[in-house]
Amino acid sequence: MAWKLTQETMTIATEGRGFHDVSARVRAVVAKSGVRTGLCTVFLQHTSASLLIQENADPAVLRDLGRWLAKIAPEDTSAYEHDAEGPDDMPSHLKTAITRASESIPIVDGKLALGTWQAIYVVEHRTAPHQRHAIVHVSGE
Amino acid sequence: MAWKLTQETMTIATEGRGFHDVSARVRAVVAKSGVRTGLCTVFLQHTSASLLIQENADPAVLRDLGRWLAKIAPEDTSAYEHDAEGPDDMPSHLKTAITRASESIPIVDGKLALGTWQAIYVVEHRTAPHQRHAIVHVSGE
Amino acid sequence: MAWKLTQETMTIATEGRGFHDVSARVRAVVAKSGVRTGLCTVFLQHTSASLLIQENADPAVLRDLGRWLAKIAPEDTSAYEHDAEGPDDMPSHLKTAITRASESIPIVDGKLALGTWQAIYVVEHRTAPHQRHAIVHVSGE
Repeated sequence: MAWKLTQETMTIATEGRGFHDVSARVRAVVAKSGVRTGLCTVFLQHTSASLLIQENADPAVLRDLGRWLAKIAPEDTSAYEHDAEGPDDMPSHLKTAITRASESIPIVDGKLALGTWQAIYVVEHRTAPHQRHAIVHVSGE
Repeated sequence: MAWKLTQETMTIATEGRGFHDVSARVRAVVAKSGVRTGLCTVFLQHTSASLLIQENADPAVLRDLGRWLAKIAPEDTSAYEHDAEGPDDMPSHLKTAITRASESIPIVDGKLALGTWQAIYVVEHRTAPHQRHAIVHVSGE
Repeated sequence: MAWKLTQETMTIATEGRGFHDVSARVRAVVAKSGVRTGLCTVFLQHTSASLLIQENADPAVLRDLGRWLAKIAPEDTSAYEHDAEGPDDMPSHLKTAITRASESIPIVDGKLALGTWQAIYVVEHRTAPHQRHAIVHVSGE
C-alpha cells in the first residue's frame, strides 16, 4: 500500500479555563487522510494550555481534575516571580508542565484507537478565552 | 530499504496498584518487526492506569514514587465530586493526568534505544486487578 | 517525494540543576534531514533528567517552575526509602515522572512547528553536572 502523510492545523477558540474535547475533530482528520494503519500525533503550540487524554464519561472527573490542578498550582502571586501577565499565567505554565504538549495515538483499521472512556482534550489554563492552535499529523498506509 | 509497519496489542493483567515492567514485551514486538532504524510508540487505552519510563535498578525508587503519587493525589473522598466508582478512582485519574498515555522511543540498530537505567512501566492506579490494553506501534526500515 | 529517515544523538553537558534550551540543536537536525513535511521525536535516555516544552520569553518562568518542582518534590531524605545516591536523587526521579521522556513535534514547510513562545528544554534535576543523551528522530518527506 502507498504511504500517506497528512497535516492539518486546528484552531480551538476556548472560553477560558476548562476542558475542550477535540476527539471528533482529530477523528475527522484521520478519516480524511485515508490511513488504515498508522499513527496520529497531536501537538499543541502553547505553554499556558495543554493536551490531556482523560475520561469522557462522568463530567465530574474533569471538574475534580480542574480543582486539583488549581490546588497544586495555586494562583498565589506571592509565590511567583513571573506575575506581569496576571495571577493566572504562572499557574498555567505549571499545569502545562505536568500535562502534555504532544500525544501520539495509533490508527487501527482506519480508526483512532482511543480506549472506550478516553477523549482528547485541549485544556485552557488561562482565565480569559484564547485562540489555541494544534497540529494534527497523520502517517501510515 | 523497505518501509515496515507493525502494530500489536498487549494485554496486561495487573494485580492492583503497582508498576508492571513491559520493556521485554515491547522489545519482542520491535525484534519481530524487523525494523533496524525507526520509532516505537506505546499507547495505553485507559484513564485510570498510565505509562511511565522510570528507573529499573533499585525497586525502592518505584515504592517511593508510588507513595509520593498517593500523597499528592490522596484517597480523600471529601475532596472529590466523582466518587461513584470508589475512593481510589478519582486519585487514579489524577495520577494518570500527570503521567503518560503515550511514549515514543527510537529504534537504533534494531534495538529499542532505552537508556541503561530506563524501563517502560504500565502503572496500575486502581486498587483492584484490571485487564489493561496497550498498542505497540513500530515503523521504520 | 522520497521518504527520509534521520537519527542523531545529542550529548548535553549540564551544569547541574536547571533548564537547557536544545531547540537550536533539534532545529539543526531537522534542517540537515531535508524533511519538508514530517515528525520530529526527541527522546531523553534518563530517569533523573527530563524533557519539557516551555516558555522561552521571560526567564522568570523557568525559575518559578524550578522552585515549584522543588516544593512539590522536596529534598527530604526522611520522606524517601531510596537515598543511597544522595538527597537530590529521589526528587529527581519524581520530577522526571511528571515531566517528559519523549516529545513529538511536527515539521511543517521544512521547519520544526514549535509555537512562538515554545522552546524544548532538557531539564537537569540532579545537583551535580551530568552528561545527558537525547536521540532526535526525524521522518517525513
